[in-house]
Amino acid sequence: MSVARAGEFGLIARVTARLASGHATLLGPGDDAAVVHAPDGRVVASTDVLVEGRHFRRDWASAVDIGHRAAAANLADIAAMGAVPTALLVALCMPPELEAQWTEELADGLAAEAARVGASVVGGDMSASPTLTIAVTALGDLGGRAPVVRSGARAGDVVALAGRLGYAAAGYTVLSRGFRTPKVLVEAYRRPEVPYGAGPQAARHGATAMIDVSDGLLADLGHVAAASRVGIDLLGAAFEVPDQMRDAAHALGVDPLGWVLGGGDDHAIVAAFPEDLPLPAGFRLIGHVVHGAGVTVDGRTYKGAAGWDHFR
Amino acid sequence: MSVARAGEFGLIARVTARLASGHATLLGPGDDAAVVHAPDGRVVASTDVLVEGRHFRRDWASAVDIGHRAAAANLADIAAMGAVPTALLVALCMPPELEAQWTEELADGLAAEAARVGASVVGGDMSASPTLTIAVTALGDLGGRAPVVRSGARAGDVVALAGRLGYAAAGYTVLSRGFRTPKVLVEAYRRPEVPYGAGPQAARHGATAMIDVSDGLLADLGHVAAASRVGIDLLGAAFEVPDQMRDAAHALGVDPLGWVLGGGDDHAIVAAFPEDLPLPAGFRLIGHVVHGAGVTVDGRTYKGAAGWDHFR
Repeated sequence: MSVARAGEFGLIARVTARLASGHATLLGPGDDAAVVHAPDGRVVASTDVLVEGRHFRRDWASAVDIGHRAAAANLADIAAMGAVPTALLVALCMPPELEAQWTEELADGLAAEAARVGASVVGGDMSASPTLTIAVTALGDLGGRAPVVRSGARAGDVVALAGRLGYAAAGYTVLSRGFRTPKVLVEAYRRPEVPYGAGPQAARHGATAMIDVSDGLLADLGHVAAASRVGIDLLGAAFEVPDQMRDAAHALGVDPLGWVLGGGDDHAIVAAFPEDLPLPAGFRLIGHVVHGAGVTVDGRTYKGAAGWDHFR
Repeated sequence: MSVARAGEFGLIARVTARLASGHATLLGPGDDAAVVHAPDGRVVASTDVLVEGRHFRRDWASAVDIGHRAAAANLADIAAMGAVPTALLVALCMPPELEAQWTEELADGLAAEAARVGASVVGGDMSASPTLTIAVTALGDLGGRAPVVRSGARAGDVVALAGRLGYAAAGYTVLSRGFRTPKVLVEAYRRPEVPYGAGPQAARHGATAMIDVSDGLLADLGHVAAASRVGIDLLGAAFEVPDQMRDAAHALGVDPLGWVLGGGDDHAIVAAFPEDLPLPAGFRLIGHVVHGAGVTVDGRTYKGAAGWDHFR
């Protein structure tokens, strides 16, 4: 059955029937607005939009996968502030001929990814559109902590990473060349493995600045460096390319370091910490904050891909 | 300059430079997420999406107008819970050839409408897309009150309305027939005049159920009736058609009552109140909650347009 045939209210009923309620949900879907617990008197909020053909392709990933990815992109932003996600709202624009089942499976993916952090889908909107578009807003709770912003890094801090780099970008390249393996790369593109807990953990350990890697490590650390008015020098040795990624890069004729340093969508969490503190579990040292500007690798400018501009 | 030429980060900088910070904003645009005051430990959240050609046309309204409308649709949802809006997040999908200035003016409209209630735009996302799409999420604060949901109306309650009905629908019909006047109708379509304060006021006066009229009065009260398991009987005499609307309807050969009872987009606030309480200022009696089901006018089913389904 198409979404047009299901109708707006029929489709909303089908989708909301599949959504569990998270522990922060005081009032879920079905009214003019949702009500979500915000225990410390503040709420963290972030919006990300995915457009078909630009951020996802229906022939490259299932609806469930795309739901996972759409949720992950937003939940990672909440984690990168040092907060714990509480809720998602989803605005979904669909061609009228889209199968209603696709929408239900998308909701399953969104709900399952949210459930990984104890959050849930609390509301949304649906409309017909020529372009399949998924706009997600995530809310989160700081648990009494100060938000960890991009502008707090100081010369002398260490830079540390939680999570993977380059896997999703490698999977994207593999798919774009018409291949379906290596599975570890393709699956990483379809469903990023985000270290959500690392965000609040870094905040508790005194992180001075933090960001999630969505545009590519060099680009995102460039945002931190600019906002903090510092330079960041990365340790080239910290970016060993895994064998499977190296083999895939060789077969495709590309530089795998471009995936690792320039690829987005893994949603790793990168943070600066005062140098005298031990790093929290799950983080590894990848560089240092220095006086100056910009991001370098072993003191030099990296010449490969520097990240994504979503209009080019 | 096109948005493609401005680039994602250039465009974000241009737009955020135009946004003032509301009193609830603890951290505004520019980081992974915003942080918004949620003083009573809960946050109200709602999402609405506008798609070009379906919810707006660039030749019918300016970018500033469309910003006002997109904000109003969301802020009204917050007000209809009895809450005061605090913040907006905006996901904007644009054709690459769109003028960057259009985006800036849209932001001006969003910000100006939000400022009417003391709120501001705290974050968002931008992407290229073949279809111009504006997804807005609004947040709000209940000020310690219980949310006023759709399901609380009880037989014996009175039904009362704040704000206008039919003006936006009439303006839409006028524009769709190629006319630009009467101005009062066209302007109502372009920039709805939402009685935001009526929502929290109704909550303080003991409203038992509340909704904003976005799909049409009969359709939206139908949601209240269904959720509350009651019927609602409206007083036909309460819906006097203003002269300008009657004249326009006559000239266009349509029934103006269809606009009043079936038209959306004015975002009037309609609420049920216990019958023994005086109505709050700004509300007028339009009907009664009765035992039964569905919505009637003077005891009969109205045969005209019953509201919008966004897939048809």
